[in-house]
Amino acid sequence: MAWTVDLNSDLGESFGRYVIGQDEEVLKHVTSANIACGFHAGDHNVIRRTVRLAAKKGVGLGAHPGLPDLLGFGRRFIAVETEDVYNMTVYQIGALQAFASLEGKRLQHVKPHGALFNMAGKDGEIARAIAEAVAAVDRELILFGLAGSELVKAGERVGLKVAREVFADRTYQPDGSLTSRTSPEAYIHDPEEAVHRVTRMVKEGKVTALDGTELKVQADTVCVHGDDPKALSFVQRLRRGLEENGIRIQRVSDR
Amino acid sequence: MAWTVDLNSDLGESFGRYVIGQDEEVLKHVTSANIACGFHAGDHNVIRRTVRLAAKKGVGLGAHPGLPDLLGFGRRFIAVETEDVYNMTVYQIGALQAFASLEGKRLQHVKPHGALFNMAGKDGEIARAIAEAVAAVDRELILFGLAGSELVKAGERVGLKVAREVFADRTYQPDGSLTSRTSPEAYIHDPEEAVHRVTRMVKEGKVTALDGTELKVQADTVCVHGDDPKALSFVQRLRRGLEENGIRIQRVSDR
Amino acid sequence: MAWTVDLNSDLGESFGRYVIGQDEEVLKHVTSANIACGFHAGDHNVIRRTVRLAAKKGVGLGAHPGLPDLLGFGRRFIAVETEDVYNMTVYQIGALQAFASLEGKRLQHVKPHGALFNMAGKDGEIARAIAEAVAAVDRELILFGLAGSELVKAGERVGLKVAREVFADRTYQPDGSLTSRTSPEAYIHDPEEAVHRVTRMVKEGKVTALDGTELKVQADTVCVHGDDPKALSFVQRLRRGLEENGIRIQRVSDR
Amino acid sequence: MAWTVDLNSDLGESFGRYVIGQDEEVLKHVTSANIACGFHAGDHNVIRRTVRLAAKKGVGLGAHPGLPDLLGFGRRFIAVETEDVYNMTVYQIGALQAFASLEGKRLQHVKPHGALFNMAGKDGEIARAIAEAVAAVDRELILFGLAGSELVKAGERVGLKVAREVFADRTYQPDGSLTSRTSPEAYIHDPEEAVHRVTRMVKEGKVTALDGTELKVQADTVCVHGDDPKALSFVQRLRRGLEENGIRIQRVSDR
Repeated sequence: MAWTVDLNSDLGESFGRYVIGQDEEVLKHVTSANIACGFHAGDHNVIRRTVRLAAKKGVGLGAHPGLPDLLGFGRRFIAVETEDVYNMTVYQIGALQAFASLEGKRLQHVKPHGALFNMAGKDGEIARAIAEAVAAVDRELILFGLAGSELVKAGERVGLKVAREVFADRTYQPDGSLTSRTSPEAYIHDPEEAVHRVTRMVKEGKVTALDGTELKVQADTVCVHGDDPKALSFVQRLRRGLEENGIRIQRVSDR
Repeated sequence: MAWTVDLNSDLGESFGRYVIGQDEEVLKHVTSANIACGFHAGDHNVIRRTVRLAAKKGVGLGAHPGLPDLLGFGRRFIAVETEDVYNMTVYQIGALQAFASLEGKRLQHVKPHGALFNMAGKDGEIARAIAEAVAAVDRELILFGLAGSELVKAGERVGLKVAREVFADRTYQPDGSLTSRTSPEAYIHDPEEAVHRVTRMVKEGKVTALDGTELKVQADTVCVHGDDPKALSFVQRLRRGLEENGIRIQRVSDR
Repeated sequence: MAWTVDLNSDLGESFGRYVIGQDEEVLKHVTSANIACGFHAGDHNVIRRTVRLAAKKGVGLGAHPGLPDLLGFGRRFIAVETEDVYNMTVYQIGALQAFASLEGKRLQHVKPHGALFNMAGKDGEIARAIAEAVAAVDRELILFGLAGSELVKAGERVGLKVAREVFADRTYQPDGSLTSRTSPEAYIHDPEEAVHRVTRMVKEGKVTALDGTELKVQADTVCVHGDDPKALSFVQRLRRGLEENGIRIQRVSDR
Repeated sequence: MAWTVDLNSDLGESFGRYVIGQDEEVLKHVTSANIACGFHAGDHNVIRRTVRLAAKKGVGLGAHPGLPDLLGFGRRFIAVETEDVYNMTVYQIGALQAFASLEGKRLQHVKPHGALFNMAGKDGEIARAIAEAVAAVDRELILFGLAGSELVKAGERVGLKVAREVFADRTYQPDGSLTSRTSPEAYIHDPEEAVHRVTRMVKEGKVTALDGTELKVQADTVCVHGDDPKALSFVQRLRRGLEENGIRIQRVSDR
């Protein structure tokens, strides 16, 4: 039996004259691109370039809808209503779809960004609004959500294909949540340890929490970052390590 | 032979708590809705409500892309590059399309808004960028442009169906352009005169300019407004008058 | 001894072509104007007109800083950091000050808007950030806060003059907070009852909560609204009623 | 007699998570800081940090008001009305003033940004609106404008102190305007040549246009950039070269 996993990364986060990320480099290593849609980052020109670049590389195109908060980069909780969330998700997916169609492609997936991702992980109502919006726009879209989260449950409930996301560079709590970024133990810096952990999540469906608890986890896609040279080198080593362990890196839509 | 013409109006221009227009009323009288897409007016919640309302009434759904200038309501010239225009048009049409699909509909048409409409009327490069963007997203979309303008020419050149737009409440210059809004003779306030003029444009393809020159004009759609009770009554009387003159009011897509 | 109280209202909330409120009318009846600063509502042109109008009427000029959320009209909670709150308060006061100086005036007061007002009422850290920002920009500014709130305490702690605000059209809970807007008992619609309650708050420093509890309250200023003809008539009757009860309506800075 | 000149640079152009420029480095070499005010770039948090940093170094604090166009970085012409320009200038100066006062400082100068700077250079009405706005807010502010431009004239007409700006890294046309950036001859890349030219402008009031014409020019301040290591090294060498030629680098307010 062949083991496979998808690598996804946030892309297209530049805005006007402002540049963030090294999209061209990251696109060499990942199989799915979460492309900012103009609410928390990105603009119509950046989207065009990013979609085109990702399409050329054969990377799965994803909409990365966020809260309307460029100043806060979509990372701040905003007390939005569920109908508002539904509509902002529809709007952002629609915008991305049009750019995908310019390249003769369809979107592969949708992954909410930042605070919206976190809210959708814990708040069943927000999760449902997003899942229903995705399904209403295109039932073939794959919904990306944190493994075990409300978002994954909501996606399954409305009949969407879901991709359970795990983190290569983060530690887990006994309840399956990620250790808070403010904790000194939140991050895994050693790429070899990351390879080991992700391999085990993919092959055995298990990960060890910080306190030693064995957690069940399903790993369809791994979130990686490429903001700086170090992050980029981490991704390269992770990918090579996984492949050496017999795991094929593959778009979720190709599984 | 049956004479027909379409009546179009700008809708969905509210934003957040800010309300503009009387969309429900206007939708009783027009056959095509130009729906703001969130750049110069409108937001994702307003778009949802407007698309739903227009779809229920059987009114043709149109994207009304504008310049990214909420403060100026998209009415101020901005020195945008053609590629920027192309991309902002794709983005805004895509967003609208997603909301149309929620109602089981497809967009009927695209009409640029305000300064973008004016720029596209005179600047062949801007006109081409818009026409190409529309065609790239969906070749079935009908492009609305001022009769005789660069936009109409560009639309025809890329193989789009175009709808030539005339104005019921504005006078014309000998060169076919509209008399500037700053002129005291710019507007026609008498609905009966408007009925007479539009009837002649539809049936004979002619309109008399301010100086008496006879102009050729093709009238596929008439732009009307419904911002206040007076404007609304103007539209009602125009519609009834045209019908009494044997002109059927019909969506451009039904011709 | 002469009883006095200030009447304040939110003004300058229009934006670009979008109009909210009937500022000219409201300004006839109030003594303090809370002027939107361009973050949740208002723009530089609206501010200019509003400041000029208020200055002409001799109404106390106030900055009404809000969260950077035009779409949500500053009414949605956003998880902002205290330093961010400090800086956005400084920025918005500074902008308003410049317009006041054009009229040969100084700002009289600062009152946070919407979600920022609510957050500052309960969260001591947010309250302190606002109070410190106000004091840092101009120690003569009067800080408006809900009577009994954290904001009033923070203002006093940094040595600012504070104006305790009460509501004429809202009921109170036994703990001194306002009854939630979602409750059917939240509002007082009868102007005579409002006159009676405000008179008692001003003269006796007491108000009866919904359950009958007698609450102590200090009323320096009363928040009123003028969004529609009914609200405007409420304000007129409130003002006349208070004056008939021997309470002089006076700017806080004139006390 | 002592020769002096000011060096000014655009700073505080970051926004939210987006970073532009190396402000700390640039501040070591310049004497006047043009600080973005939140319309074309910058936000209230960035302004705070930049004003504080510049104040610590003793650099002259300047407001750098721009058009409300974050997407276009304030570099695109927008057809704004003069009253709008007046009000946006007042607003942005006011916001900056408040942050300057936090550091116990007053603003030294105002320099319009990008498209607004260019418009003010050629359009007398726009120039007057800006000059009058500056004078209305604070008559002590120094107005920075391109030597020979409408802005400088307008500033003098309303009685402001003006600083005539020259460019070290740009060539001039026979009519005194800068060679367009699109021309291959627009830029001067050799720092030694720049030192020579600026020295001559400062000491002799002369600069040679591209075609050999001798132009009269008054040089109060030199615009420099520090966006990348190369630009920064250019500034360092320019400064040292000018000092070696006996020109003291000094804030305009210290002359």
